[in-house]
Amino acid sequence: MHELFTVLPPGEAFASFGRGCSPIERSEIVPLEAALGRVLFDDVRAAETLPAFARSTMDGYAVRAADTHGASESSPAYLRLVDDVPTGVVPQRRVGVREAVRTHTGAMLPPGADAVVMVEDTNLHGSATSSGQAEVEVLDSAPPGDNVLAIGEDVVAGAVAVPAGRRLRAADLGGLAALGVTRVTVRARPRIAILSTGDEVVPAGATPGPAQVRDVNATTVAAVVVQAGGVPVACGIARDDAAEIEYALRGAVEDADAVVLSAGSSVSVRDLTAEVVARLGSPGVLVHGIAIKPGKPTVLAICDGTPIVGLPGNPASALVVAWRIVRPLVRLLGGERVDDDGLGDERELSAILDVPLPSRPGREEFVPCTLARDAGGGLHATPVFGASNLIFTLVRADALIAVPLDRSGVAAGERVRVIVP
Amino acid sequence: MHELFTVLPPGEAFASFGRGCSPIERSEIVPLEAALGRVLFDDVRAAETLPAFARSTMDGYAVRAADTHGASESSPAYLRLVDDVPTGVVPQRRVGVREAVRTHTGAMLPPGADAVVMVEDTNLHGSATSSGQAEVEVLDSAPPGDNVLAIGEDVVAGAVAVPAGRRLRAADLGGLAALGVTRVTVRARPRIAILSTGDEVVPAGATPGPAQVRDVNATTVAAVVVQAGGVPVACGIARDDAAEIEYALRGAVEDADAVVLSAGSSVSVRDLTAEVVARLGSPGVLVHGIAIKPGKPTVLAICDGTPIVGLPGNPASALVVAWRIVRPLVRLLGGERVDDDGLGDERELSAILDVPLPSRPGREEFVPCTLARDAGGGLHATPVFGASNLIFTLVRADALIAVPLDRSGVAAGERVRVIVP
Repeated sequence: MHELFTVLPPGEAFASFGRGCSPIERSEIVPLEAALGRVLFDDVRAAETLPAFARSTMDGYAVRAADTHGASESSPAYLRLVDDVPTGVVPQRRVGVREAVRTHTGAMLPPGADAVVMVEDTNLHGSATSSGQAEVEVLDSAPPGDNVLAIGEDVVAGAVAVPAGRRLRAADLGGLAALGVTRVTVRARPRIAILSTGDEVVPAGATPGPAQVRDVNATTVAAVVVQAGGVPVACGIARDDAAEIEYALRGAVEDADAVVLSAGSSVSVRDLTAEVVARLGSPGVLVHGIAIKPGKPTVLAICDGTPIVGLPGNPASALVVAWRIVRPLVRLLGGERVDDDGLGDERELSAILDVPLPSRPGREEFVPCTLARDAGGGLHATPVFGASNLIFTLVRADALIAVPLDRSGVAAGERVRVIVP
Repeated sequence: MHELFTVLPPGEAFASFGRGCSPIERSEIVPLEAALGRVLFDDVRAAETLPAFARSTMDGYAVRAADTHGASESSPAYLRLVDDVPTGVVPQRRVGVREAVRTHTGAMLPPGADAVVMVEDTNLHGSATSSGQAEVEVLDSAPPGDNVLAIGEDVVAGAVAVPAGRRLRAADLGGLAALGVTRVTVRARPRIAILSTGDEVVPAGATPGPAQVRDVNATTVAAVVVQAGGVPVACGIARDDAAEIEYALRGAVEDADAVVLSAGSSVSVRDLTAEVVARLGSPGVLVHGIAIKPGKPTVLAICDGTPIVGLPGNPASALVVAWRIVRPLVRLLGGERVDDDGLGDERELSAILDVPLPSRPGREEFVPCTLARDAGGGLHATPVFGASNLIFTLVRADALIAVPLDRSGVAAGERVRVIVP
């Protein structure tokens, strides 16, 4: 297997990998106030029609539209004021011919009325407090339905209010609240086991000896998993030893819906990892190497139904592949709709490239950049040059420019896609 | 005050409001794995230099660069293989003149070596297992520093590793892990009291009587607060009564860093709210009405140091103003850098408008839209026409198109800013 692997474009690699993955089947019921960002398990249908009653959308007068027909400033209509209906109160008085009822934004429309004349288009003559004494001068005609929210205009009983697979946003929660849905069934968060390997790697909390480094990938991958809606399951660090890695991986597969391991970066260690993964179950390794910079030595496998991602050991490479591959994987397992190529979620922006960016065709390249807005609000990306394989290059960057597979560089002034980590 | 208020553009309104607000002063210490999305309270400086030792970035041979000078396929250099240094191991043997040491990606560079020749640029003659017997044929010259990560190339002790005010991302946490920082001091999340008002409003969990509706704003505003990094403090629903609103507001001010109330939508109720807010402290109401659609009847106040936002009662309007005003307010209170006009955070995308969109100059307009990608990955926005004052119009939308204040419509094919809720 030594360096003989076929390198696939990331989109193709994700597509063939993703085809073998399906959303986890577990669900849980959460209160509405804990449902933000969770993925709806089933369609929620409206149990009632909203609004349930015709409502005024303005302060003014509820009228029969026919009574205002042809009304204008030069030829007003005159209506008798017969009632005042505050919001939250059920109107008692029907609006008869050439009658008007004082109404308020959000109030129930009285029976008989089919339009509301805005208060700005009226003059009131006489006392409004003793109904029956006052007259409303209407200076404009109101067509039927004017300034009225009709029954069912928002949602109709039986319709899908919020669809399955939706990652719930503020508006969705608002729609559910409007319908009285205060508990929702959401898909359980996928559990993602995170395993680091490497003879030189010690936990972040430890003091490295000479020639040792701290584990960065466990932390960054966990953060990407959380952002994508998953639960990271920390599995520690395994030595570069086939038996130790296999033992750790078997435990991880047992305990989680998917496994992300960051392998050491040397060829021998990478091969070791791929060999161990291949033993775990079928079909085994699907992709060994993707056309991406940084991050080429990535392994994608499915072992007896459990997706396994082998990331490069270098922290910057591991983080780029986590964004490109692990994030859409977790979203897919979590029940969200994900594009076949794994791209296309809402954290991808479009920006204008400020300086020319060389690139080599045949691989997707992710280049750290800073972002700034011009006076017109346009977003500009400036590459952060320097060693792209260093974690602090990413700390100093606002985002990553994604240079497509087929491009040999991007000219200044062109639009580029950027991924905001 | 009745309808006499001055309507300010949203950017100016936020600027004058934001000038009176400052980040809350409380901090807390959290473990690294709970720090994603939290805002760093102080600069974190590197306590050590990374890498702490020169490392190989490739599998190959550590050499003295001078010994490879002029080497090529036609005229190779021959070096004696004297050692093999795995990752995590401290080299014992110095690299002498015309000597090479087998090295691996991530391994410590042995003393005496100043470059690494990639294994692909070499041939090995003799047995590599018994050192001293084997010879490395070098087919390319390696300049000093080639394939070596120098001490301090990632970060230098004493430098700011992650700056104060940074909302911590995966890469930031990775940088902190690399430095052994496993607990970080973050700004406490601002507590935002949320109060609904309205005689017709009942809690989401209740069954509305005739002429009543459920409270939607408490839910949507809480979600926006959470997304912006704040903690929503639920304060229930007050009747449209000055004494009741004042009592509830005084309690909210006591308990929270800012207050968001959604007022009834009728003019009399709006005025009632503004009058009560004005009594709470100085300077009181700063803005009464912003040039935004939907959402014009918005009140911004600072009362004895506590920011207060009065949202319109209509759920769709309230949510738009929550995005435009409450979100940057919470981020500002939470210690993030916010643009003066409140715009410009990472949830704003750029998209191509697919159909012409009429608009009236003089107000910012937020139009619900769907988003789709074309084959080239370009993002397209299509307005969802229909009643924009309905919550389910927002549920059906992917985002909101922000039409700037000064535009009388946008042509098809033009770029627009969109806010992803």
